[in-house]
Amino acid sequence: MALGGNALGNTPEEQLRLVKETAKPIVDLVEQGYEVIIGHGNGPQVGMINLAMEFSANKGGGTPYMPFPECGAMTQGYIGYHLQQAIQAELAARGIQRPCTTVVTQVVVDEKDPGFANPTKPVGSFYTKEEADAIAAEKGFTFVEDSGRGWRRVVPSPIPRRIVELGVVEQLVRAGAIVITVGGGGIPVVETEAGLKGVAAVIDKDRASALLARDIQADQLIILTAVDRVCINFNKPDQQALASITLAQAEEYIGQNQFAPGSMLPKVQSCMEFVKGNSHGGVALITSLARAAEALQGKTGTVITR
Amino acid sequence: MALGGNALGNTPEEQLRLVKETAKPIVDLVEQGYEVIIGHGNGPQVGMINLAMEFSANKGGGTPYMPFPECGAMTQGYIGYHLQQAIQAELAARGIQRPCTTVVTQVVVDEKDPGFANPTKPVGSFYTKEEADAIAAEKGFTFVEDSGRGWRRVVPSPIPRRIVELGVVEQLVRAGAIVITVGGGGIPVVETEAGLKGVAAVIDKDRASALLARDIQADQLIILTAVDRVCINFNKPDQQALASITLAQAEEYIGQNQFAPGSMLPKVQSCMEFVKGNSHGGVALITSLARAAEALQGKTGTVITR
Repeated sequence: MALGGNALGNTPEEQLRLVKETAKPIVDLVEQGYEVIIGHGNGPQVGMINLAMEFSANKGGGTPYMPFPECGAMTQGYIGYHLQQAIQAELAARGIQRPCTTVVTQVVVDEKDPGFANPTKPVGSFYTKEEADAIAAEKGFTFVEDSGRGWRRVVPSPIPRRIVELGVVEQLVRAGAIVITVGGGGIPVVETEAGLKGVAAVIDKDRASALLARDIQADQLIILTAVDRVCINFNKPDQQALASITLAQAEEYIGQNQFAPGSMLPKVQSCMEFVKGNSHGGVALITSLARAAEALQGKTGTVITR
Repeated sequence: MALGGNALGNTPEEQLRLVKETAKPIVDLVEQGYEVIIGHGNGPQVGMINLAMEFSANKGGGTPYMPFPECGAMTQGYIGYHLQQAIQAELAARGIQRPCTTVVTQVVVDEKDPGFANPTKPVGSFYTKEEADAIAAEKGFTFVEDSGRGWRRVVPSPIPRRIVELGVVEQLVRAGAIVITVGGGGIPVVETEAGLKGVAAVIDKDRASALLARDIQADQLIILTAVDRVCINFNKPDQQALASITLAQAEEYIGQNQFAPGSMLPKVQSCMEFVKGNSHGGVALITSLARAAEALQGKTGTVITR
């Protein structure tokens, strides 16, 4: 299952409170016999860490400049710690003896991914045009003007190609563990002759979770979002919630621009990738975290099938 | 094996360079057939992250205050990412097919540990007496005057009692993985009715590694430091390097104050804890990273035996 980073709040106190709520429906699934692997976003968290490290490095805090993939690695520790602690507590409260742990996870992207030529994800502070130009000249970053609020660095969002720690996740699941992995879509790395190398990029966490689910031959991919079901004609008088769609229907709706880019579209596409790539009839489900257990019983959610 | 956090440098670039050197002797051991589990310190790294988060929160960076255990969790992601990437590259370069991964690891300490009454580890920024008093009143922190440089927060260094993710580490080692764990001595947590709870503390990484080694029934604990061998009469004309000592001899030297507190003493004590607690004759070794493979062949290092 893929959890949204926004669902984890904006401060450590908020996150600590929210993960306790998040743990309940997850442990519901464990109780029902599911082997659960958790991917999660890190948008607000990597933004916060990147901003703090940048502010301190630039404004006299005396700490070094911190590259973006390293900030992502930090969020895996930070979010993973809270999530695993909350899930461990919920398991213990229900008398379930199962380990839960976070695996620091790298995800390989292609250096030639078209995303690198067209960075779109804003990260870090706002700068004046002069400041942005100076940093761009020094570090080779790309900046764009962000809705009149100033200039902001943008990084690419390449397609995930391979989960480096896949085998480790597999072993742990086999051993009965609930595994937290591909945090923030994974730490983005490219393959070089000398091994893997971190790159400044943001991998979509739904796509990374779908890739993991496909490669681990999961029975089901669950993408959790703010709504119980995917809708067509969203926010219009004839809005219609979808209970189940095939790949062909999904293609048709995408052709009609039914799903918002950067929102529902990548979620539906991630589900389609998983369903297409899964050799033993796995299905994908989009629903809300609160109703995940019900959705797995067919009471809500949108199922994507072949 | 327990690696020093100081050996990892002070900036991400330095760390990325140093882990490549660190990976070589580690993979030497893997090549010789050892199943390697790596614990590591995080002194400079958690200092840096704590400082940057504090600076940004206090000086207008607009990011929230970050508690100390969360900063420790971040270092596990940050250091673990670099270490596992370097080890993976070294394994691949030698054609060895073995996974290497980092497990986000919590370590339980006792709320009644005497360390909590007497915090000694300085962390974070220097403050004036007035600033320190104000923060102490607001957050309940303890501050001490640090060698004329200002007032600095101190946190306790309690004894590690239990590795929460021990079972997970065990599973991964059995599956052939090289595991990075108890980073920075582990994220310090106490047991509460509602589950585990992070506490502001620094667990000695050698003690945490010794606890892990004991509980996982390792054959050997290796504590890596700046010197090849433990010495008595250190820095005196009659300095003597020790090739092998028994528990009784170690006790005797400790009685003579041969080992510096906060430096060699906790390393020797950690080795003694492991040797005492290990039911199948495991031995401990103190040596330098560069000569670890030689030390395992008895050519250097100090072995601690029953």
